[in-house]
Amino acid sequence: MTAQLSLQKLAETRRATLDQALDAIRTRAYWSPHPEHPKAYGETAPAEGLAAFEALRGGRFELDQPGTDGWTGAETSPYGPALGIEYPHADIEVLLPALRAGMGAWRAAGPEARALVCLEILARISARTHEFAHAVMHTSGQAFVMALQAGGANAQDRGLEAVAYAYAEQTRVPERADWSKPQGRRDPLEMRKTFTAVPRGVSLLVGCNTFPTWNGYPGLFASLATGNPVLVKPHPRAVLPLALTVRIAREVLAETGFDPNLVALAVERPGEGLAKDLAVRPEVRIVDYTGSTAFGDWLETHARQAQVYTEKAGVNTVVIDSTGDYRGMLGNLAFSLSLYSGQMCTTPQNLLIPRDGIATDAGPRTYDEVVADLAASVDTLLGDDARASALLGALVNPDVKARLEAAAELGEVALASREVRSPEWPDAVVRTPLIVKADGGAGSGAPYLAECFGPVSFAVAVASTADALELLRRTVRERGAMTVGAYTTSPEVEAAVEEVCLDEAAQLSLNLTGGVFVNQTAAFSDFHGSGGNPAANAALCDAAFVANRFRTVEVRRPA
Amino acid sequence: MTAQLSLQKLAETRRATLDQALDAIRTRAYWSPHPEHPKAYGETAPAEGLAAFEALRGGRFELDQPGTDGWTGAETSPYGPALGIEYPHADIEVLLPALRAGMGAWRAAGPEARALVCLEILARISARTHEFAHAVMHTSGQAFVMALQAGGANAQDRGLEAVAYAYAEQTRVPERADWSKPQGRRDPLEMRKTFTAVPRGVSLLVGCNTFPTWNGYPGLFASLATGNPVLVKPHPRAVLPLALTVRIAREVLAETGFDPNLVALAVERPGEGLAKDLAVRPEVRIVDYTGSTAFGDWLETHARQAQVYTEKAGVNTVVIDSTGDYRGMLGNLAFSLSLYSGQMCTTPQNLLIPRDGIATDAGPRTYDEVVADLAASVDTLLGDDARASALLGALVNPDVKARLEAAAELGEVALASREVRSPEWPDAVVRTPLIVKADGGAGSGAPYLAECFGPVSFAVAVASTADALELLRRTVRERGAMTVGAYTTSPEVEAAVEEVCLDEAAQLSLNLTGGVFVNQTAAFSDFHGSGGNPAANAALCDAAFVANRFRTVEVRRPA
Repeated sequence: MTAQLSLQKLAETRRATLDQALDAIRTRAYWSPHPEHPKAYGETAPAEGLAAFEALRGGRFELDQPGTDGWTGAETSPYGPALGIEYPHADIEVLLPALRAGMGAWRAAGPEARALVCLEILARISARTHEFAHAVMHTSGQAFVMALQAGGANAQDRGLEAVAYAYAEQTRVPERADWSKPQGRRDPLEMRKTFTAVPRGVSLLVGCNTFPTWNGYPGLFASLATGNPVLVKPHPRAVLPLALTVRIAREVLAETGFDPNLVALAVERPGEGLAKDLAVRPEVRIVDYTGSTAFGDWLETHARQAQVYTEKAGVNTVVIDSTGDYRGMLGNLAFSLSLYSGQMCTTPQNLLIPRDGIATDAGPRTYDEVVADLAASVDTLLGDDARASALLGALVNPDVKARLEAAAELGEVALASREVRSPEWPDAVVRTPLIVKADGGAGSGAPYLAECFGPVSFAVAVASTADALELLRRTVRERGAMTVGAYTTSPEVEAAVEEVCLDEAAQLSLNLTGGVFVNQTAAFSDFHGSGGNPAANAALCDAAFVANRFRTVEVRRPA
Repeated sequence: MTAQLSLQKLAETRRATLDQALDAIRTRAYWSPHPEHPKAYGETAPAEGLAAFEALRGGRFELDQPGTDGWTGAETSPYGPALGIEYPHADIEVLLPALRAGMGAWRAAGPEARALVCLEILARISARTHEFAHAVMHTSGQAFVMALQAGGANAQDRGLEAVAYAYAEQTRVPERADWSKPQGRRDPLEMRKTFTAVPRGVSLLVGCNTFPTWNGYPGLFASLATGNPVLVKPHPRAVLPLALTVRIAREVLAETGFDPNLVALAVERPGEGLAKDLAVRPEVRIVDYTGSTAFGDWLETHARQAQVYTEKAGVNTVVIDSTGDYRGMLGNLAFSLSLYSGQMCTTPQNLLIPRDGIATDAGPRTYDEVVADLAASVDTLLGDDARASALLGALVNPDVKARLEAAAELGEVALASREVRSPEWPDAVVRTPLIVKADGGAGSGAPYLAECFGPVSFAVAVASTADALELLRRTVRERGAMTVGAYTTSPEVEAAVEEVCLDEAAQLSLNLTGGVFVNQTAAFSDFHGSGGNPAANAALCDAAFVANRFRTVEVRRPA
């Protein structure tokens, strides 16, 4: 194959970005090359992005993949319309060997070339951020601006971060080394050594419904950048964003002279259960998964031939001990509970509040007052239907709606969920958050000790902050947590909550009262999950996330 | 606790060594602070080391550990004498909580302090290298000089290498970061972040019989340096070297003000099967194991609550295509087969030789001639009983002897194993290597396709070098390999064997004809195993070996 796009040209255009990313993961200061503002993509981008998305609807999504044996797909937007897109269905007996065919040349290209190709893929995705935003919106139910940010810019950041980690990790060992061992008066022993990063094999990405790109890109790009072919198995309700990604990846691979089949798509027929079949194939050596604890545990147990990276359910907690900015705290929490209808793996579920109340800059507040004030804050935030829709998005699927409805029976309702009419999307199922009161001493069967995914939170009354910390510890240890928040003006309480989070490996946000929210993490600086509690066995993104996706082969010979 | 030995003092004495180690793992040039020559330890060291070892025999090995509920131990030297040492037996219900008690302070000490304490432990072990050499010799059966080098200096190197990797990995993320995200005309969002390496929990080292220190130190020091308490469960036949290690570690921890129970020993009663019980305890979050594939697979399947690092059986192969130094090749191979009676996980087992013979600088040699010449080289090397004993050591246990005896029935014997009388240790079981002829086309039931641990090699006749490479590929893929060797003067064959090793993730040594042997690897430069084929799921030592022994907890707060 001849490359239309040379690696030298890629180095000129992309190497500086790689170097900046390498610097950012080292300093962990703020950095991003992917703008969050819709207008940053140019005047014509919004209309072009929408047109591109509309052009995809009601047709076949062609991908020139080997082994296509039919067409499948039945995505319906959480905003109402059916997308009507059909995707190729693959005969995996043909597709899996095809994925492996280009591995040798991809391995031989080396870490820098692979990183540059990955950066080119990301740059082309970035240029089509508006199109991706519509695709993410109409599969996940995220509101448009969030879909553009979280599903576009922030997802691209996480992909780039993974490429940077992969490059850094593969280049920590030199390509060549000369070794000379003194032998007293005799001649030294002298060897020449080469070290090559080699891939493990096919990497399987099992995509999720809510964040197909954000949760998918780290594993996809970490595996590709370390030399592994990647097979993308999207969630049947959220195929389009990953199908677009695969198409762009294949284009860039072909243009740079590599085998486009290094990245391929495997969409399942309804009820096919394709992920289970693929995950235990001997060719599959890496699996990335975001979703339920049940299937995550299944993968960890059965896909023994593979490295398995899972993000599963967790129960996120906020400890409310005291605050010097009561109004800021309420506003910040109200936003966190409302954003994307609480359908983030990072949304707080349990708010632990001392029964006797808390000290605030606005005077003491009882448990009941805090809960009522928070409910009022949510009401105020979501009072206007148009504004509420832009924050809440839509419920991603009927399971979330059913869970929300059932949750109102779990205790005294402090804030009822209400239906919101989206002015633009009358068929969207939009709901405000439900807050249920609960007793912190209720024991291990308490409903708040299980993840209740969706716009449901529990205001848990505890006897004291000390009891809150014990409940926090138990919750993280037994149920896992992607995030922990705490509000306190006491240095002692702050130290105590930090101690619990260090003991139980949970990521902690303290006293958030402004424009940073516990459920949002920034690539290059914040870790998403810790990999050290039951909510996830990996963090996005650290060295451990990439270091075992490749191995180093040494060849030594006498010098 | 007050520290007798301050961290500042430790920094003065040990930081430079850490920096040199960090440099060595980056350049992979030759480096070691641990001398291999017995005389390097001073004039009185040999006598003192022997006396110290003799003083341990026939007594109780006191360790001031919590939960001691009895005494056990029945080591017998492969050289004959019973050691007569009894070790404390632990009530693990008491010992496991005691291991965890000091975790908080050990975590809070940070990566540098932990590294320095580990280096102090290694320095004290190094100062007692002669004593350790006797302990390793009389548990593993290694000859004295090898026990001093492999079980002393080289093991200390591997421990130090693990400390360097652990330190490097934990310090890749800064302790603190300031983060400022622009918000257009509004004030930037500003956060202060801290990042802390936190341990996973108790790390269990399941020791092996043949290399208790060399194979044990990487996991032990990697886990301790990343903040985890370490419970050492030695092989019942090789307790003493690890018991000494634990005692020294406990002394240094106590002197530096840490809880000595961060490192503890768990010796099993005969038939107790303690490793199985310990490996699935919820407190145990990391397991390091070297030994049989059966138990390694059991650990990987059942110890699901832990990170499990295993080195298991493999079938090491040498491809003999051609050579420009026939004499050097024969001598090098003869030494590799003989060293420690082939009881290294890195010893070549299968020598693949084209049936029609090979080209050499001494003219063409048929398969039969190569095999006969190699047999003669081994005979010459081991002709003198005293010299043979010093190279062969003793058979480590009766299983190896039984396997060797049975192997003589597996095919035509090209070189019979003979009994060697050790002049110094008349009760030692010392045997020279057996070489059996085999047919490379024999199919998957061929005896050479299973590991035959001990002084047994197969001279496998293959139709061509191409067939040899196919057999190599299949052997590594299905059986695993710690090492691959190859001899060739052909650049094409060299490239082809490299390709197989890159494809199957095997470490390759080419054309060794001098003083470097395929079964020896040097810390800081050579990788031991690849972690990418069935012989081991980890390499000693790389970033992947340490990166998942700890997690990073972030705490963020508004600036």
